[in-house]
Amino acid sequence: MDHRRRINELVSGIEGMGLDGAIIFSPENIHYLTGAPFVRGSYGKILFVGKVGEASLIVTDLDYQEVCDTVDSSEIVKTDFMEKPLERLRKIVKDSSRLGFEEGVISAALKEKISGEFKLEPLRGLIEKMRERKDADEIALIERAQSINDRALEKAIENMKEGMSELEIAAELEYYLRKEGEESFAFETIVASGPRGVYPHGMPSTRRPSRGDAVVIDFGAKYGGYCSDMTRTLFFGEPVGEVRRAYEAVREAQERAIDIVRDGVSGREVDAVARGVLDRLGLGNYFVHGLGHGVGIEIHEAPVIGPSNGSPLAPGNVITIEPGAYLPGKFGIRIEDLLVVEKGGKRDLTKFPRELIVI
Amino acid sequence: MDHRRRINELVSGIEGMGLDGAIIFSPENIHYLTGAPFVRGSYGKILFVGKVGEASLIVTDLDYQEVCDTVDSSEIVKTDFMEKPLERLRKIVKDSSRLGFEEGVISAALKEKISGEFKLEPLRGLIEKMRERKDADEIALIERAQSINDRALEKAIENMKEGMSELEIAAELEYYLRKEGEESFAFETIVASGPRGVYPHGMPSTRRPSRGDAVVIDFGAKYGGYCSDMTRTLFFGEPVGEVRRAYEAVREAQERAIDIVRDGVSGREVDAVARGVLDRLGLGNYFVHGLGHGVGIEIHEAPVIGPSNGSPLAPGNVITIEPGAYLPGKFGIRIEDLLVVEKGGKRDLTKFPRELIVI
Repeated sequence: MDHRRRINELVSGIEGMGLDGAIIFSPENIHYLTGAPFVRGSYGKILFVGKVGEASLIVTDLDYQEVCDTVDSSEIVKTDFMEKPLERLRKIVKDSSRLGFEEGVISAALKEKISGEFKLEPLRGLIEKMRERKDADEIALIERAQSINDRALEKAIENMKEGMSELEIAAELEYYLRKEGEESFAFETIVASGPRGVYPHGMPSTRRPSRGDAVVIDFGAKYGGYCSDMTRTLFFGEPVGEVRRAYEAVREAQERAIDIVRDGVSGREVDAVARGVLDRLGLGNYFVHGLGHGVGIEIHEAPVIGPSNGSPLAPGNVITIEPGAYLPGKFGIRIEDLLVVEKGGKRDLTKFPRELIVI
Repeated sequence: MDHRRRINELVSGIEGMGLDGAIIFSPENIHYLTGAPFVRGSYGKILFVGKVGEASLIVTDLDYQEVCDTVDSSEIVKTDFMEKPLERLRKIVKDSSRLGFEEGVISAALKEKISGEFKLEPLRGLIEKMRERKDADEIALIERAQSINDRALEKAIENMKEGMSELEIAAELEYYLRKEGEESFAFETIVASGPRGVYPHGMPSTRRPSRGDAVVIDFGAKYGGYCSDMTRTLFFGEPVGEVRRAYEAVREAQERAIDIVRDGVSGREVDAVARGVLDRLGLGNYFVHGLGHGVGIEIHEAPVIGPSNGSPLAPGNVITIEPGAYLPGKFGIRIEDLLVVEKGGKRDLTKFPRELIVI
């Protein structure tokens, strides 16, 4: 990973905004700029980047050794015992500096607390915009994370049988995710069968799918700090009638949407293609979410693939395409692939087939 | 769960602060007050609570069905297609209302955005303080979540053998967590062996512990929306010398600290007992974090068990006690139990033994 290049790009950005530096609290942004490992939701580090390109990563004793072993692009500053990273930041930063901060990341309370001491200006998503277009190193990690998904589902299916609960299905799947090299989950695994399938975020339960039930399985591995994301809807016993037609409709919606993905097309246009197919097949009212989202260090990041996003896709965007149909009281269906947008087209990182599978 | 009682307690709190209501964005606080399921980091719902006790949970189509099936204490308001919950909130709230908001939860940008339309006052941790003292229903869920941990580790150990990688150890453990009923992980599983043990948040890797290596395993299940948390350090082959002495020192530090836990004692005092034992045994400089933290809907919540917290513990606090020793380049050791503070004492929810275990 070329962290130095990223820091230089950030420096150009803050110069263009007339700032003297930036203070970064988001563990995801710090990981992007330095490679420092992080745990979700843990705000223990601060990165200071100044306008001549100096970068200081302030960490406590707790993180010091791991950061020393993994970070090479920044000076690593260890706080004293019981000293907070913010106290050390005050000693590093000149009083007169105008500093960019992540207004969408830090809490209103933290902003209030530090705005008395620093001259703060919003960074307006500067780093998140850099992260939207993945470089080759990042794409390689996401591709590897997705191949872990593909292989794990393939192996887990060999062990799936009628009578298993959603929890047992999750157990099999997650076992193989680890065996294939998953360093941590990208998000909570969803296994939702029959009428529970209408819960788009349904956690696995003790429910045992009955014959003909659709089982939505949505999961993702992390590898090298990057997420992957895929969904398949499997059937326990041959599906018939409405649920089978819905499956084929969602599959067609996904294929038609994937067909048009390339740089220059907007998230709104891609969403409209899938929505159009489902409308035509009478399922438009049951597709209750956007078509997809960007994936990278975070499981949900820019760009949005949905009616709200009219901006053109760009090469290096990594996005999901995940149409669904959710019929309350009956069933849910979702099929999701992970794609990298390329010049004039795209590459589908998901190799697992989308044809209907009966367990 | 008595959600109505909790909403009434919140209403008393906001009345005491002279407010007309509160707007709640934190999915954890919304879960506490209504039972609505949530996915970590997902901010799709808004709860409005007014001063006469009316509660409206605003959700999109995506969450509507699941919320209808689980929430009974609040009116459920579904947004129109493409309407954002914030737009609906504007229609519900009277212009003149003074509303409490979660200043430690919402971003500086969101605060800025809504402070033009609502008269906002910080809630000052009102809901988080309520959450510090768990009721009997909550303790029962945490106890169940911890018993899942205990049983899963016991079963996973039967399958552990020399030559396995950290990833394979995680695979075995997580498999049994699911089989025992874990609905989702409480946090990313840590498996860190030998010199990697000094990374307090070390994700499992392809490293295969060698003979005599300490292997730190830190993990937690969620059950009914509540987290559990435990750590054991296992040995692959009989440990000798410094690492064995360190294990026994950390064990003694943990036992002495647990001994004094009861209501009225402060987190600082409990921390000092463990730190004193490790100081006496020459390991004080290698214990680089606080002794513990509260656990509940979130894996890290109040109260802090460390030098910074002089407030007395109270019955219903659920806390970890997790001393450690991390010798850079050599090994890490940590042992962690989950306790509920009671009047005059405590109950240790972790039943797994802390005696040294050799695989």
